[in-house]
Amino acid sequence: MSTTTFDAMWAELEPVGWAPSGGYRRFAWSAEDLTLREWFAAECARRGLDLTVDRVGNQWAWWWDGPGTVDDAVAAGRPGVAIGSHLDSVPDGGAFDGPLGVVSALATVDALRAAGVTPDVPLAVVNFVDEEGARFGIACAGSRVLTGQLSPERALALTDADGTTYAEALRAAGRDPDELGPDEQTLRRVGTFVELHVEQGRALVDLGTPVAVASDIWPHGRWRFDFPGEANHAGTTRLEDRRDAMLGYADLVLGARHVATQRGCVATVGKVAVTPGGVNAIPAHVTGWLDARGPQEDQVRALVEELTGRAGELGAEVTRESWTPTTRFDTDLADRLRGVLRGAVGTETPVSVPVLGTGAGHDAGILATAGVPSAMLFVRNPTGVSHSPAEHAEREDCHAGVEALTACVRDLTRGGPDGEPAPGVVRRADGDV
Amino acid sequence: MSTTTFDAMWAELEPVGWAPSGGYRRFAWSAEDLTLREWFAAECARRGLDLTVDRVGNQWAWWWDGPGTVDDAVAAGRPGVAIGSHLDSVPDGGAFDGPLGVVSALATVDALRAAGVTPDVPLAVVNFVDEEGARFGIACAGSRVLTGQLSPERALALTDADGTTYAEALRAAGRDPDELGPDEQTLRRVGTFVELHVEQGRALVDLGTPVAVASDIWPHGRWRFDFPGEANHAGTTRLEDRRDAMLGYADLVLGARHVATQRGCVATVGKVAVTPGGVNAIPAHVTGWLDARGPQEDQVRALVEELTGRAGELGAEVTRESWTPTTRFDTDLADRLRGVLRGAVGTETPVSVPVLGTGAGHDAGILATAGVPSAMLFVRNPTGVSHSPAEHAEREDCHAGVEALTACVRDLTRGGPDGEPAPGVVRRADGDV
Repeated sequence: MSTTTFDAMWAELEPVGWAPSGGYRRFAWSAEDLTLREWFAAECARRGLDLTVDRVGNQWAWWWDGPGTVDDAVAAGRPGVAIGSHLDSVPDGGAFDGPLGVVSALATVDALRAAGVTPDVPLAVVNFVDEEGARFGIACAGSRVLTGQLSPERALALTDADGTTYAEALRAAGRDPDELGPDEQTLRRVGTFVELHVEQGRALVDLGTPVAVASDIWPHGRWRFDFPGEANHAGTTRLEDRRDAMLGYADLVLGARHVATQRGCVATVGKVAVTPGGVNAIPAHVTGWLDARGPQEDQVRALVEELTGRAGELGAEVTRESWTPTTRFDTDLADRLRGVLRGAVGTETPVSVPVLGTGAGHDAGILATAGVPSAMLFVRNPTGVSHSPAEHAEREDCHAGVEALTACVRDLTRGGPDGEPAPGVVRRADGDV
Repeated sequence: MSTTTFDAMWAELEPVGWAPSGGYRRFAWSAEDLTLREWFAAECARRGLDLTVDRVGNQWAWWWDGPGTVDDAVAAGRPGVAIGSHLDSVPDGGAFDGPLGVVSALATVDALRAAGVTPDVPLAVVNFVDEEGARFGIACAGSRVLTGQLSPERALALTDADGTTYAEALRAAGRDPDELGPDEQTLRRVGTFVELHVEQGRALVDLGTPVAVASDIWPHGRWRFDFPGEANHAGTTRLEDRRDAMLGYADLVLGARHVATQRGCVATVGKVAVTPGGVNAIPAHVTGWLDARGPQEDQVRALVEELTGRAGELGAEVTRESWTPTTRFDTDLADRLRGVLRGAVGTETPVSVPVLGTGAGHDAGILATAGVPSAMLFVRNPTGVSHSPAEHAEREDCHAGVEALTACVRDLTRGGPDGEPAPGVVRRADGDV
């Protein structure tokens, strides 16, 4: 049943936002994104879920057959369990990053119903908006604003490559920018969040296991390096008279790789902007964006300091655009899910369910930082590739992921033998970062 | 008189296509370019010049008061003299590159008339279209198509950054793309071409002289370097698993400077395109454009070969987009103009008029290659900067340029004592390259 619905939903999503020349282009609040949001709403309506949209635009579809409203249940000590992910993509992204979690969550509802299970606490399927930050530059904007980790003022002033502000994009999508802001009422309903995601590396391939549980998210950040130069003619200006901003940029690119290797981190310069950008003009200004991450915060900081020093000697200005310290997922929750999954999932029989750290940021990390006990399940990716059309999950592993998520949700939404709410759903007061 | 008209014309042109954030943006067949073409047509009409537009779109305004038409005069052994330059700009360019030559040519017509001079051969003021190649990527497209050095098929298929083809741009400007092609009838009229241009270096500053005559244009070309990579997640992909196209690009940038220094050439990487171009995505493909020039052809070739070899080891494909060997201007014509100008121009009294080579391509070089005896005059640029709003010529030097151009044209358009056409206006059969 859930297998059938997974496959049908997957087939429906495949054409949306696909650019044959590159990959998926599903940017926040674009026409493609609105199509995906309508699709999500329709799938929720078909299942009789109660769809609410929070102040940020995140879509929450609640299943609660108990007495009173979801808020009544929460007030009565039965905070909800939310599962889901996002539907937007990076530029020329793949099909799995985000949608696998949303489709698996909807298929989990189907699987529970097929098994005749009714949750003892409210269950939500969530579609977070703007996880990738591909259009406006800040990843996890939907969950960051929701939890107060990104101010609505800063969000509304963000601009895309065409100069459209976030506020204008919201308006164009029929939303009121004044509504944007933290949404405590929505957040209060979520006692636990579980995000299923395609793995973004090859650990599960090596382990021969279809599903893992996340331990933590590496500290990570983005820095903008602005190199100054002087526009001049590429043919008539002597080398000794040049101030070519591209040279400093090239030094950053090679330096980032070198220092990352030394410090056991990863560093990437994936975006560059050149002024004036003519073939026969010496660059007057080059901006490069550094993405740096690693298992240890002090090593990532040291890497960025070293690169900042090098660039500073060339007159560059360095601006930190974002920084997220190590995010540790709730250990009790992760242990509980590993216990549920041990030997219960997939065609192989692992001794135990692996626990993996990840270098990627996720909405689950933002919620964890906000104090919501959160967990992630990773589904094996045979290519290990991510943020590319080459990312993949075999259909069999997708089904194993639904099976795993269903087992987790069954456990998390089951009332205790004495009718008490399930353990692990009590909100902590603060993040653990 | 010519001083007054120069200043008035200059003031009229100054606002057209000026972007306060950067500089002039006057791209071929854009709205700004059409405004400039209308301005040129109006200035020619005011002077009673006979404006014709060739098959490419270059504007030729003829002054011929002799018997019959311009073509009659040419057929009778009196080929015309053309003076002028272009009105388009590079992205964020300066005010002088191009317009100084056009405005000086119009002011020369005024100066000749103020002096009561009527040319003994037809005189044209020309505005070449699309000299900079800023929009469609090929410099001197107007003179190249005119002379058969760029095929109309290739030109029409060129695209700008928005994906607009040259054919579509022509149509939008009210021109018939089918008309585009070499124009032998137009070319046959031009016995001699003289282009006045702001200097793109500091040689005249050092020499203390306002005007020089050109000797040659350095060999120069453009090469596209395509570096392959694999799109992947910037946070989750181990350094050893990456194929990051940006690293090869950075090596090209630093290598180009290094090898150019060794070989006495200049080399520039001023334009880059990255796919997918996200901050958190490893570049799957980076294209860099190399501009390389130098006094010696063999040195430029050796530079490009060395860089091609380095890039080839990284899997890059290298494509030559253009190559122009050394262009030597007509020595007899240059000597003749130096003789005219010696001690006759400017407030300073140089021993002789300097002869300068240049690393920049010009329409005069394209015409020279096509066998039209051509010459260039350079006007001192106190900053030495080019392709930037910082390029400059003092007004006094602009007037000296008009004075020089007027003296040259007086000489070139004067019939010999026996009524024969002036020397130096006989077309050669072939280019000298």
